[in-house]
Amino acid sequence: MDYTDIAGQLCKTCHLFGSRRWCLATSGNFSARVGHEQFLISQSGREKSELSPDDLMLCDLDGTALKPEQIPSAETPVHACLYRLDENIGAVLHTHSVPATVLSRAAETGVEITGYEMQKALTGVKSHEATVTVPVFDNDQDMHAMAVRLTKAWRDGRIAVPGLLIRGHGLYAWGADIATARRHIEGFEFLFECLLNEDMRR
Amino acid sequence: MDYTDIAGQLCKTCHLFGSRRWCLATSGNFSARVGHEQFLISQSGREKSELSPDDLMLCDLDGTALKPEQIPSAETPVHACLYRLDENIGAVLHTHSVPATVLSRAAETGVEITGYEMQKALTGVKSHEATVTVPVFDNDQDMHAMAVRLTKAWRDGRIAVPGLLIRGHGLYAWGADIATARRHIEGFEFLFECLLNEDMRR
Amino acid sequence: MDYTDIAGQLCKTCHLFGSRRWCLATSGNFSARVGHEQFLISQSGREKSELSPDDLMLCDLDGTALKPEQIPSAETPVHACLYRLDENIGAVLHTHSVPATVLSRAAETGVEITGYEMQKALTGVKSHEATVTVPVFDNDQDMHAMAVRLTKAWRDGRIAVPGLLIRGHGLYAWGADIATARRHIEGFEFLFECLLNEDMRR
Amino acid sequence: MDYTDIAGQLCKTCHLFGSRRWCLATSGNFSARVGHEQFLISQSGREKSELSPDDLMLCDLDGTALKPEQIPSAETPVHACLYRLDENIGAVLHTHSVPATVLSRAAETGVEITGYEMQKALTGVKSHEATVTVPVFDNDQDMHAMAVRLTKAWRDGRIAVPGLLIRGHGLYAWGADIATARRHIEGFEFLFECLLNEDMRR
Repeated sequence: MDYTDIAGQLCKTCHLFGSRRWCLATSGNFSARVGHEQFLISQSGREKSELSPDDLMLCDLDGTALKPEQIPSAETPVHACLYRLDENIGAVLHTHSVPATVLSRAAETGVEITGYEMQKALTGVKSHEATVTVPVFDNDQDMHAMAVRLTKAWRDGRIAVPGLLIRGHGLYAWGADIATARRHIEGFEFLFECLLNEDMRR
Repeated sequence: MDYTDIAGQLCKTCHLFGSRRWCLATSGNFSARVGHEQFLISQSGREKSELSPDDLMLCDLDGTALKPEQIPSAETPVHACLYRLDENIGAVLHTHSVPATVLSRAAETGVEITGYEMQKALTGVKSHEATVTVPVFDNDQDMHAMAVRLTKAWRDGRIAVPGLLIRGHGLYAWGADIATARRHIEGFEFLFECLLNEDMRR
Repeated sequence: MDYTDIAGQLCKTCHLFGSRRWCLATSGNFSARVGHEQFLISQSGREKSELSPDDLMLCDLDGTALKPEQIPSAETPVHACLYRLDENIGAVLHTHSVPATVLSRAAETGVEITGYEMQKALTGVKSHEATVTVPVFDNDQDMHAMAVRLTKAWRDGRIAVPGLLIRGHGLYAWGADIATARRHIEGFEFLFECLLNEDMRR
Repeated sequence: MDYTDIAGQLCKTCHLFGSRRWCLATSGNFSARVGHEQFLISQSGREKSELSPDDLMLCDLDGTALKPEQIPSAETPVHACLYRLDENIGAVLHTHSVPATVLSRAAETGVEITGYEMQKALTGVKSHEATVTVPVFDNDQDMHAMAVRLTKAWRDGRIAVPGLLIRGHGLYAWGADIATARRHIEGFEFLFECLLNEDMRR
């Protein structure tokens, strides 16, 4: 897929997630790999539900803007870190929903999920009988420090699903391409909403 | 109704249900009978909120693809089994909503419903004073085994309404045509949302 | 306003309420007075979110169809009864939402509301300090019997706001014209959603 | 930005907030400063989800209509008071959502918020570790009296964030321009929905 197609698909995903209130108040950020050594990401502070290709910019895998006059999203170090960790990651999406925020604050180090068919939306999960643990990281205003912690957890094998929560901050999910990352976001968000509703029933 | 009309109506129903978040992450599947001995069903893994007629395919009543290069939805055996059990079934719709998922996990063998006017959306129910029981089946990754259990329950008379729940997996509903099956899905989903809210109030 | 304008405005209101899931599964019905002695109402079983002027029909104030081959909504006697009781009523709208259904089942003879600014959306209510009581009627499959009970309650002064609940069945609201009846529906539905949320917090 | 652009942006914001059910039943009101000494505000009783530039009118900073035949929104004194208190305020938006209404009734004098990344949507908040207090004012049908209380609280330094709640009545938020005020509304509404969900989990 060429640059124009990737930019268009990224914007379309932003608009969809915006309409679901998953990136209110300019929250959320969205990126996709272009070639091997670059990725396209939303610029800082742009309204996601109206994102246009002009709101996107290119960074290298260190997270440095190719055009220095452009300011990438503050969370760019997290995106860059994921692209460096796994060359098969083609897209990274970050949503900021109410259920993900609430659950990530209530959890300690992870959210356990079992018995849901929707788990199978996650690449690699074959049965509802598996137990999936979504890791939860403490929030940090230093996104470089966050990327260091994430890298360590990845290498320690503590990130076994294509997603993670940042406490009080929302969900990151990734995949081989934008469609797969979107499916992962939707699967996780659905599961979080189920868990939150089950907590409320008790 | 001819093939083109059925395909168009099935896609329109998918788009509507997609916009209500009833088939996130490529979940859900949708079929309609064509003639007596075939049905049209969504292909595996397609995005339901954007389904086009090209994403549909024909199967015979054993659930075998007419064009062997096409892969039908994994739940095709459940659809095929329903079309075999009752020649008056013209459409089978499967949604994957949060309320249906949560309730099906909390229930044992069935969800009892009484006192709601909305029960009358279900063909055959004449009064809000009736008691309707939606059967709940355990989930299974073997959809052929699921179809065998469903067939046995049907023949034992344990499926008295045009719908059933699979635990942690969502709702199946059917009807004489797509409009009727849609009305049944909407009626059940509404009732499940009421039940879930009543549980939360307690 | 002439017939065409009234029909268009009624359809537009139906589509809006449909998009909010207030009339799923062909539930809900909507009418507006035309001249003094007739009203326009949705025909039985039509999909409200797609209602077109052809789905509407004329009845006289006894609720009898002007064209005997058309079948009006089953709840027509309730609409007709309201038009007879007050010549200033120009529109009657009936929604079937989750909060109205849940609250009407939990309440006894009325839902009390006080301290909400939104109460002022109801014609005649001047302050959030007033106490508004929405009467709740038991449901009945005999809509003529329902109309008789409603008429008695009206004459006894037990219907002091422009709306009422039917248990497990939803909300009726009315007003001098379609815009006013819509404002009343929206005000009540908002208040019911607040009350339901307050119950869940406890 | 000229008058036409401001009117267009204000209407677009109204439509968006209307689609989120944040100004049902003609509730809510929206204004933006034009030049130094005037502001544009929605006229009384207009449907916000369909607002057109013709539904807007000009007031001076005392809240007096420039064209005396036009009736501004009843809450105009609150808008005018904010424009007088801070010449850097360019837009004031008032939404009337379920979560803001429910929380404002449950709170005493303020709603405390800490540990959420979304706090950073509020101008001046740099970290999720800050504690943000949204002041809650008792409701009053006399909006001039409300403006006097608000002015006193402002001068006493009790309004440290760009927003406030009126009990049972909803949220006011403001900013240097419409986009900033919108970001503040979205940030607050998101946070209120989180808090309400956390209350329900307990």
